Parts: sequence; structure tokens; C-alpha cells
Amino acid sequence: MNEPHVATIDLGSNSFHMAIARYQGDSLRIVDRLKEQVRLAEGLDERLQLSKEAMARGLACLRVFGERLRGFTAGQVRVAGTFTLREASNAGDFLHQASQALGFPIDIISGNEEARLIYQGVAHTQHTQGKVLVIDIGGGSTELIIGQGFDCKLVSSHGMGCVSFTRQYFADGHLNEQQFIQASDAAHYLLAPVLSSYISAGWDQVLGCSGTIKTLLEMCSAITGEQCIDFPGLLYIRAQLIAAGHIDQVAINGLSEDRKPLIAAGLSILLGLFQGLNLDNMAFSDGALREGLLYTTFGRQNHSSVQSHTLQTLSHQYGVDTQQAERVRSTALELFAQLHQSWQLDGAFAELLAGAALFHEIGLHVNFTGIHRHSAYILRHSDLPGFNLEQQKTLAALVRFHRKALKLSELEPLAALPEAQLWRLVRILRLAVALNRRRQDKALPVLLVELAEQDSLRLQLPAPWCEHNRMLLTTLQREQEYQAKVGWQLELVKL
Amino acid sequence: MNEPHVATIDLGSNSFHMAIARYQGDSLRIVDRLKEQVRLAEGLDERLQLSKEAMARGLACLRVFGERLRGFTAGQVRVAGTFTLREASNAGDFLHQASQALGFPIDIISGNEEARLIYQGVAHTQHTQGKVLVIDIGGGSTELIIGQGFDCKLVSSHGMGCVSFTRQYFADGHLNEQQFIQASDAAHYLLAPVLSSYISAGWDQVLGCSGTIKTLLEMCSAITGEQCIDFPGLLYIRAQLIAAGHIDQVAINGLSEDRKPLIAAGLSILLGLFQGLNLDNMAFSDGALREGLLYTTFGRQNHSSVQSHTLQTLSHQYGVDTQQAERVRSTALELFAQLHQSWQLDGAFAELLAGAALFHEIGLHVNFTGIHRHSAYILRHSDLPGFNLEQQKTLAALVRFHRKALKLSELEPLAALPEAQLWRLVRILRLAVALNRRRQDKALPVLLVELAEQDSLRLQLPAPWCEHNRMLLTTLQREQEYQAKVGWQLELVKL
Repeated sequence: MNEPHVATIDLGSNSFHMAIARYQGDSLRIVDRLKEQVRLAEGLDERLQLSKEAMARGLACLRVFGERLRGFTAGQVRVAGTFTLREASNAGDFLHQASQALGFPIDIISGNEEARLIYQGVAHTQHTQGKVLVIDIGGGSTELIIGQGFDCKLVSSHGMGCVSFTRQYFADGHLNEQQFIQASDAAHYLLAPVLSSYISAGWDQVLGCSGTIKTLLEMCSAITGEQCIDFPGLLYIRAQLIAAGHIDQVAINGLSEDRKPLIAAGLSILLGLFQGLNLDNMAFSDGALREGLLYTTFGRQNHSSVQSHTLQTLSHQYGVDTQQAERVRSTALELFAQLHQSWQLDGAFAELLAGAALFHEIGLHVNFTGIHRHSAYILRHSDLPGFNLEQQKTLAALVRFHRKALKLSELEPLAALPEAQLWRLVRILRLAVALNRRRQDKALPVLLVELAEQDSLRLQLPAPWCEHNRMLLTTLQREQEYQAKVGWQLELVKL
Repeated sequence: MNEPHVATIDLGSNSFHMAIARYQGDSLRIVDRLKEQVRLAEGLDERLQLSKEAMARGLACLRVFGERLRGFTAGQVRVAGTFTLREASNAGDFLHQASQALGFPIDIISGNEEARLIYQGVAHTQHTQGKVLVIDIGGGSTELIIGQGFDCKLVSSHGMGCVSFTRQYFADGHLNEQQFIQASDAAHYLLAPVLSSYISAGWDQVLGCSGTIKTLLEMCSAITGEQCIDFPGLLYIRAQLIAAGHIDQVAINGLSEDRKPLIAAGLSILLGLFQGLNLDNMAFSDGALREGLLYTTFGRQNHSSVQSHTLQTLSHQYGVDTQQAERVRSTALELFAQLHQSWQLDGAFAELLAGAALFHEIGLHVNFTGIHRHSAYILRHSDLPGFNLEQQKTLAALVRFHRKALKLSELEPLAALPEAQLWRLVRILRLAVALNRRRQDKALPVLLVELAEQDSLRLQLPAPWCEHNRMLLTTLQREQEYQAKVGWQLELVKL
């Protein structure tokens, strides 16, 4: 084959989906889809433990998906976990086994990132005009987005989905009006904090996506003959369900057996949305999360441009001193270039290092005292389009340790890179920060750094420069002491 | 006496100072000063434990000060602790005994707040022209400020002072050139991160204050006959000290016995500053921290205007939705007015409640998810002019608990108010937040709230309003559940 195939997998709370696509010139054409109703969220208990059974269902599905992807390389596959895997406290165990079963690494994405990807899936699939409100009701979470063209204007993700709402409001299978009202009111309640911003942003078109809304569309169509969902149609379906009295008694056109257990909850959430946003009707889009993953990861408008836009926005929002950030970045990359071979640092880490250099002082917006902790807090908790949660955690860890005493035990475990590699990046970043303590351009000599025996770093400095830069030399000596306390050797050699 | 006296006390790392003043018309005239060299910082060990001996010296001094203040009421006295009390891990023990010995409560202020107060002390004492750079070298910390008139433009506080530098660089009493160079380089190193911003802000005049600089001024004057410190003078003093070889051998005009042990360290820090900022000379100001406390607490330009300016700046910096903040504030104060008597809430808490209402959503700048935690983080760690550290902690605690599950065990102990009172304010704030969930003006009926038996809150709502506001009713019911989980009763009564 001339053009390679690519694949994306979305590990949803109700179903796992895979889409496989092929390049046709510059564009991607989906050539295969697989779906398996894994019901992961069903296995999540109140203590946020994912059950063994649910894990086993997930692993079985991923083994099948893995077979289909035989011959694919890591660069051709992107896999994203959503709500249930964000929430489960034992997600780490599952992810480890899951990536082995599948044969590819798995990212966990934040709720807002999920919302943005869903929107991209819609925007790449559907012809839209003007501002579009997109609604996706999943197994564990519901996403709302307003976008125009390929730009998201508002995104939010809410921890309610048809699996969790079934458990909370329809656990016994009975269907009565009181339950529906309670569930819809609860949905309205959960969405209330964001509704006014959506209403004031406004929209020209409403699109729903994913399984729940697709089922409701089919049920509405069976009544009205129109390819859209409207409010009276939803109320009619609700009346049909209440009339049946119990989910086992339900038989409605358009409702398949596997969707039956979740339909009352899904309908209640959508009714809550219709009420809260004063909607009359909505159409359906075939594109959703997996298509969004596909087009943003492998499409022409690629991922790194989203990341760089995020970094710019963040820098502006927190008033970062970009000149100093740039000095530190440039020194850090200069040192990285001299060290990455002997330290066996993957070239991709250079981007992480550069990101950490750009944002190591972002915490100054909060306070100079404790700046490294504030920077880490902001990077760890902000909504960063284009970054997955592990990348955020890694950036946060790097800036956390950019200055002051190295309290190594405070490192949160990272999945993106081995701890030893992280500390090497920290050593480079700290040296770059120390060397730029004067905050002036052209203050530095040519830097020569190399790895001496036993992981010791040797930095060579011209003796005349040292004479005239005593403060910087003191800074490097302090840095030497900080590193020595955790057993990292830094040699300063005057030439 | 017609006009009352007022007093301020500064619990410094080296000395405790008290100033007593009397109103003359609208202005304050200082009528008495007391000073005691308590050497608190000397008793701070590496594990940040304050020794019993140092505490005893402090308590003895405060008993004397307390005698002098007999007949003063709490509203006439303000007491602030600085560096050593910020740092000591057992400061709580000392503060408890100290406020008993003195008979008045004690605030701990942040380093930046200390710097701002020092500047106010200078600005109210000294005639200045143009931009002024103020330097204060204390026992535990050194403050740098650039201000103009009564406005601070730049402030910073650095954890180096003549007590800690004596211990680090001159512990054995020997005085040689190498030690001075090391100590000055260390000072330059510690200040380096902020120097470029001071240099680019620029100044027209340099003023030093407090004991160390006063001593150096007297030593310089003894040489030059001029009332100012200049660089050659400082170098000459250094040469004199080195020539003596040991602190016990030193005899220099202008240097008193009690200042002798700290002079080498103080001189080194000032030399580091002269180098780092390229200074030629500086004059001295008699005003410092205690005068700043005096004029900002008791003067015409009073404290609450500084606080309200801080709140405005913060609101702008973090892009707070001021309309929603105002709605929540107004509801909270309405509820407070109906409850403060039965709950015995001090009227002064209304301001705290209002502050928390204005900033409960400040964390949105970081992320909507976990907003209450982000808001608390920002308020806890930001530099808030006019607020002491306890007020910041209390604001942070209130916003921390404004929504979601009440994890009461996460409360940091507070000295500003009893825990039971805090939880009452939290209950009011939460109710105000819940009631404004729709984020619309005029969405609320007349609110009637009262205390029923056993600390139970009863909120009365018009029945017709409830019919048309199901979402808000759901919100209140959720709130009822959250509160019930920690044993707080909230009754909702439809009238």
C-alpha cells in the first residue's frame, strides 16, 4: 500500500469504538469501524474502584481490536480513555494491562479535551453553518460545545451519563413520571452553572452525537418520519416508556435490545438539556470523539499547532515574561542537544523541556514566594487544549523542581516517561534557569556540557567570564549544592 | 484625654519595637518608643524550631510592653510578627503565650506586606521626591521597595538578614576578606531574580531604614562627616573590620556593643545590594515597619481602602465575573443579616463573608473542574496587600467549602475565628451560591431564613416560586443532602 492506514480508538464508559482510515491525498477516508459495548462504567463502584469483570470485558475487546491493528506502528494509532478511566482510582492497573492487550499506548484525556475532540469530529464530518451547539451524551459524561467552523468557542464536560443516571434513577427497571422528572431536574441542576454562558453565546444550529442520541433520533423518526429530534417527540417517547411501566415491558420502534437498559436515563438527560437550553429540536451528526481523534491526530490541521496555540494563550493569560522564558528555553535546548545522546533522552522530550522552560515562571501570577509550586499547580490543573493528562502532569513535575531544594519524594508517579529520565530533564532545566538568573540577553559564554563518569555532569566555563560574573558563579555553586544533596554530581570547570 | 492614644508593635527577628502615638487633629504624633533586642532569630534552629530561651526572651519583653499598654483597648493596638514568626514551625505555641503576655492579639504578616508597610513608614516620615528605592535589612529578612508618594510600585522580601548571615558566614567571630566576599556574593545571588525589575523601574532617591543601616550610617558619618552611606565608606568599614581580624578586637567609632555581633553580616548584605543595584550612596529614614503599621492602621488613609483596592486588582487580574460575584455577595449578606444575632456572629465577619462571596469563583481562571480548590489555592498563596496571613487563610477556607461535598477534615486550623463560626459562615455562603445558580438578576423571591432548634436552618420559600423554579429547588435539595451528610440541618419550607 502506498499511503498508510491510521486508527483511533475511544475507550468510552459504555462502548469502545475504533475507526480505521486511509489517506486519500491529503484527506482521510474512514474505511472500517468496530464497536463493542463494554459497559465499563457499570463496573465502577462508589469507592471509584473498577471491577475485575468490567476490566476483563475491556481487555477482551482490546485484544480483538489489537488483532485488527496487527502490522500498525505506534505512530499510526491513537487511543484515548475518557470519563470512567479518568475517575477510577485503579485505572492505572487497567491501563497497564490494556495497552499490553492492545499493543499500543493509551492516553487519558480531560473532559474539556474530550469535548473539543468531539467538536472536531462533528466539524470534520458534518456540513455546518454559523454557530453550532453540539451535545454528546455518553455513558459517563455529557459534553456541550459551541463552535464555528473548526474553532471551539465554549466547551464543558459534566460527570453525568446514561450509565450513571440509570443506576441513580432507574436502577430497579421501573419507569414512572416521578423518576423521569427527578432525573431531568438533576441533569438541569448539574448543567446550570454553565447554561447562561451558552445561552448568551447563542447558536444557529443544534447537533447531537453518539449512541444515546442516535437511538433517540431513530425513535423520534419512527414517530414523525423526520430525521430530527424534537421536544414533542421526546415527550411522546417518555409517555410510551411510562405507559410500559417497566423496562422489560418496553417495545418501541427504533429501540434496539442493547440500548434498552440505558434509554430512560439518556432520555432524561436530553430532556434536562432541552429544558435548560430552551431547545426545540436537534439534528444528528455521525462524527464524534473517535473522528475528532482521527482528524486532529492524523489530519492536516495537526496536533502540534493546537498545542502551540494553547501555549500562547496560557502565556498571555498569566502574563509570562516571554523574554526570560525564551532565554531559559534556548539555554535548555542547547544543553539538551549536547546531552541527549549520552543520556539516551528521546528527541521528543525536547518539546516537553521547551514547554517547561516557557512556563516555569507562570506561577509568578500568584506569588513570587513559592513560584515553582504555583507554576506546577497551574500547569497541573489548567485546561490545556491539545495536551493529554500525562503530558500536563509531566510539565507540572518539571516546573515543580526547577529551583530550590529537590524534594524528590514529592514527585507524583508519571506514566509518560521513566523517573530517571524526568530527573535528567530536571537537571537540564535547573541549569538553564540558574544560568539565566541575571535575566539579560547575551549574558552567557559558549556553554560546553558533557557527561563525566557515573552520571556526573561537567559544565565548562571560560575563566575570564567567571571573573566578571561572580553572581552567576555563586548561583551555579548553589545549584551544585542543591544537586549534591540528592546525589547528583555537577562539576564546574574553569577553562 | 480627649483623643485616644494608639500603639503598634513590630516583633522583629532581632528586636521588638513599640511606637505609641497620639492624634493631633487628623494626624498622628509619635509620643513614645520602646525597643528591646530580643534576638528571636538566634533561637531558630535548622528544623525551624524556635528555642525555649528565645521564646522566654520574647515573652519577657512583651510583658513589659503590655504593662505600658495598660488601659488600651484592642482597637487601639496593632501588633505584627515578621520573618522568624513566619518561618518557625512552632510559632503557634509562642503566639498563643505572647498574646496573653501582651494582652493583645498578634498578626503574622507576609514578607511583601512587611515591605509595603515599611514603605508606608518611610513615606509618612520622610520627605521624598520622585521615585524612591527603600532598603530595609532586618534580622531575618531584607525588603526592597520602589515607591512614589504613598504608592508602592515594586516590593519584595528576601529571607536573608543580619542574624542568619552572621550564623552562616561569621559564626566563629573571625573576619577575613574571603568571608565578606562569600557573604556579599550570597546576598547578590539571593536578590538576583528581582534585581532586573528594580533596575528597569529605576529610582531618583535611595533610602535605608532600621537598625543595621542606621549603625552603618553612623559608622560612615564618623569617617566622612556626611549624613549618608557611600560605597567607599562601606569598603573602608570592611577594611577596618578585616584589619581587626576578629569581632572581639573591633573598636570603631559609631559602632555600639550590642550591634557589634551583627555588623559584619549586615555590611555584607548591604555591599551585595550596592553591587547588585549599582548604588553609589543612600540616605537614612527614621520611619520603618512600626511607623508603617501605625499610619496604615490608624491614619486617615485607612486600612479598608487598601483592602478594597487589593480586591479590585485581584478581581481584574483573574477576570472574575463581577455580576455573579455581586449577586452571591448580596444574597450572603442578606442571609447574614437575618442570622448573625441567633448565631452570635461578630459583625466583622460580614466583611470576610463578602470577600469570600466576591472571590469564590476566582479559581475559574485555572479551571471550572475543581473551581473551589483552585479559588482557595489562589487566595491562600497570592500576595494580598492589606490582608494578614490569617485573613487570607480564612478567605481561602470559606471559598474552599463553597460547593460540593463538605470534607471538613481538610480545614487548616485557623486562629482568626473559632471553627464553629467558620462553618456557620460556610453554610451562609453555600446557600447564597446555591440560590444564585441560575446566574440571573432578580431570580430570587424574598428570602426568609431563621434558626430552628439545634442549629438547624429553616429557609422559607413561596410555593408559587418553587413551582416555576424547579432547577433552583433541585439545587437547594442537593445542598440539603450535602449538608445533611455532615450533620447540618437545612429545612426548606414552602409557604
